Order: sequence, then C-alpha cells, then structure tokens
Amino acid sequence: MSEIAIVLVEPLHEGNVGFAARVMKNFGFSDLVLVDPCPWGDLARACAMHASDVLESALTLTLEEVYSEYQLIIAATGAISKSVCRSIRMPYYTPKEIREQIRNVNGRVAILFGRENRGLSNDEIRRCDVICTIPASQSYPILNISHAVGIVCYELADIPRGTYRLAEREEMECLYEHLDTFLDRIDHPGFKRANTLLMARRILGRTRLTTREVSTIHGILRRAEWHMREEKESR
Amino acid sequence: MSEIAIVLVEPLHEGNVGFAARVMKNFGFSDLVLVDPCPWGDLARACAMHASDVLESALTLTLEEVYSEYQLIIAATGAISKSVCRSIRMPYYTPKEIREQIRNVNGRVAILFGRENRGLSNDEIRRCDVICTIPASQSYPILNISHAVGIVCYELADIPRGTYRLAEREEMECLYEHLDTFLDRIDHPGFKRANTLLMARRILGRTRLTTREVSTIHGILRRAEWHMREEKESR
Repeated sequence: MSEIAIVLVEPLHEGNVGFAARVMKNFGFSDLVLVDPCPWGDLARACAMHASDVLESALTLTLEEVYSEYQLIIAATGAISKSVCRSIRMPYYTPKEIREQIRNVNGRVAILFGRENRGLSNDEIRRCDVICTIPASQSYPILNISHAVGIVCYELADIPRGTYRLAEREEMECLYEHLDTFLDRIDHPGFKRANTLLMARRILGRTRLTTREVSTIHGILRRAEWHMREEKESR
Repeated sequence: MSEIAIVLVEPLHEGNVGFAARVMKNFGFSDLVLVDPCPWGDLARACAMHASDVLESALTLTLEEVYSEYQLIIAATGAISKSVCRSIRMPYYTPKEIREQIRNVNGRVAILFGRENRGLSNDEIRRCDVICTIPASQSYPILNISHAVGIVCYELADIPRGTYRLAEREEMECLYEHLDTFLDRIDHPGFKRANTLLMARRILGRTRLTTREVSTIHGILRRAEWHMREEKESR
C-alpha cells in the first residue's frame, strides 16, 4: 500500500493534534505532518497517550513543501453546502471511494485536514488533486478534526478482521437433520414440522454459528435424547 | 428506524462525554445515555460544540435500567487479544457487520461503551447480546472512547427503517431462564453451565428473535421436558 501522510494544516488546539496522532496509530498510520501548528506540548502528549512516537516524529512542513513532495494530495473537507462554489469543490468522494482511488497508487499520498475554525481555504483546496468529504448529518456536518482523521484512517486502514471459524454449510445441514430427528423424538406434531424446521433454519441461519457453537447445540440435544432414551429403557 | 442509544458506562473525562455527543450528532444520533458519569459541565459543553442539545438531553440511567429497557444490547469492546477468554468475547462483529445485523430491526437498541481506563467488565459484557469490536492496529488497538463512538455512529448512520419486531427484553430473559432449567433437567454438568448459557445468550441475542420465535422455542423445550417427565413417571 502507498505511504499515506496525515497533514494537519494550522491546527489551533494541541489536544486535537494529540488525539489525531492517537487515532492514526490505532489504525496503523504513523506519518503525521504539521503545517504551521499551534505550540504543542504536554496536553498533546497526554491526548496522544501511547502514540507519542507518532507525535514526536511528526514533520513540520510548509504547505508549499507538502504540495511539492507528495504525489497525490487529497483535501478532507467538511460537508459541502450548496452555496459553496461548485467548480472548486466538485466532484468529491467519500472515504470509501478514496480507498478505491488510492488502491493502485504507488507513491506518496497526503491527506490534508484544515483548521478547526475554518477548514481549508478555497485556494488550498484548488491545489489538491481530490476532495474527500465524510457523509454527515445536515443538521451538524462539521466533525472535530481528530474524529475526521479517525474516520478517514479507519476507512483506509488494511486491518484484517480477527477470525473465528464459522460452521460450514455441511455442518449446518447436519445440525438441521439432528433437529429434525429431535422433533420426531419428542412427538412434535407432523403438520407443524415443516414450519418449525423452517423457523429453526431462519433463526440459526441468520445467526451464523461458529463450529464450536454447533457442537454445543448437538451436545445439548444428545444429552436430552439420552435422558429420554434412558428413562424409556428403564421402564 | 430503530432507536439506537449510545450508552457511556462510567465515563471518567467530561471532555470525552462532550466529544461523544458531538460526533453522535454529526451522524444523526441523539439518544445519549450516561451510566454513573463523572461530573460534567462547561468542558463537556465546549467539546460538544453545537451538539449541546444531545448532551443536555442525555439520560442518566443505571446499568440495570439499561439492561431491562433495551431489546438488543451491544457491547463495544477493544480489540480482542488471543489471551482473552474466548467464550465471553466471541464471536464478535465489526461495526459494518453490526449494521447488517440491525438494519431490519424494529426495537430499542443500546450500544455500550466502557470506561476510558478499563472498558467494560466481563460481567457487563456477559449480559450483552452482541459484541462489537472495531478492527484496529495490534500495536495500539485501544481507541479514545469518543473516536470509538464516532466510528460506530459513522457505520450505523442512516440505517434503513426496521420492520422486524424484536422480542422484549423480559421475554428473552424468561427464555434464558427456561434454558437454564432445561439444562438442569438434562443433567448438564454444572461446571460447563455458565459458559453454555453464555453461548446460548450470544446465539439467541445476535439472532434477534421475534416474539413468535421465542414462543416456539419454549414449546419445543416444554415438549422435550414433558417426554422426560412422562417416561420417568411411567417407570
């Protein structure tokens, strides 16, 4: 994957710088660039928590340096209001779409986040290659900058979901068969049988059982059957 | 649309409460619930910015009230390390998967976020129906709570209206009790009991049962019990 730098343009609050560093590291990003930042120190470090490495290794660059040193420059902007000059801000892409766009880029990508109070200027946006906007509620579309960084990093991260073993189709069919014989064993009325099995299939189908869960359900059914058989044989 | 409440369990820092309110509103959510929160005031309001309405209308509930008043309860937890007890935290779902699970649900959904320093306790997690984990970097998987709220709200925003009516919490608890007595009846080993009941809660919790399905499961259990009793009495 291409190297992706998160660039904070003139951040005003050091807490946000720290929070941005933290959430970057949460999603595996470490290249933080600060353009003319507010002074920062203990509060930024406190907010960064265990991401102080990201914070301490942040580069301080000028905007000119950013524009010249990165090959693809993405402007992250707040939700677009209709009044904003369309020629500047259109078209724009969601973080999901940006993910697709940079998938095949081999080079240095910079994503610019603007000031807390007034974002990026139209001039700054004009010099970017792509506009990224997080879809947000019309009633309050402006995210805190570190939350915007978090959502962009979340979408661009390549973190595999941890796995556990889901039951195979065959294991599920075997479970449905077991349920069928169990219903038989408890004299479940035949005219209801098809509906009940269908319901079981719906319930267990949508729950996506793990292999371990399937085996536990078999175990409970077997144990109940054993009790029925045992007591029948002892008559 | 199912009502989705964001529940902060014993938040320690009022700034996080404010940031959570803000990012909720950014994605169209307004139901904030606080369980035994830190004192909060001006700092929380400052962090909430234009989401002070969400903050001021937050409900303060006990955990017991949360467990009894919501029909589907989701625990948002940090990334799972392999050493963590699997039966409590597994299986778990990403925010995207949670979106699929609740997209057709008609009912009250609560998503619990734990304390900044130690998350949710195992006991608190045990009582939830579904576990949600944000895939994050192994080198620093613990998100600031407001960033976790932000990513969950981002994924769950604009969920389509639900038609699928969930069983009430009381009906579910009654079903779990029935399962407990059923396991007793079939001499399910006591040392496995807690884990098996937890697994049942996970399976049936995430499968989002309707009232009719709950009553069918009761019926099957009763029929099996009747057979066991019947055969015992005929000895």
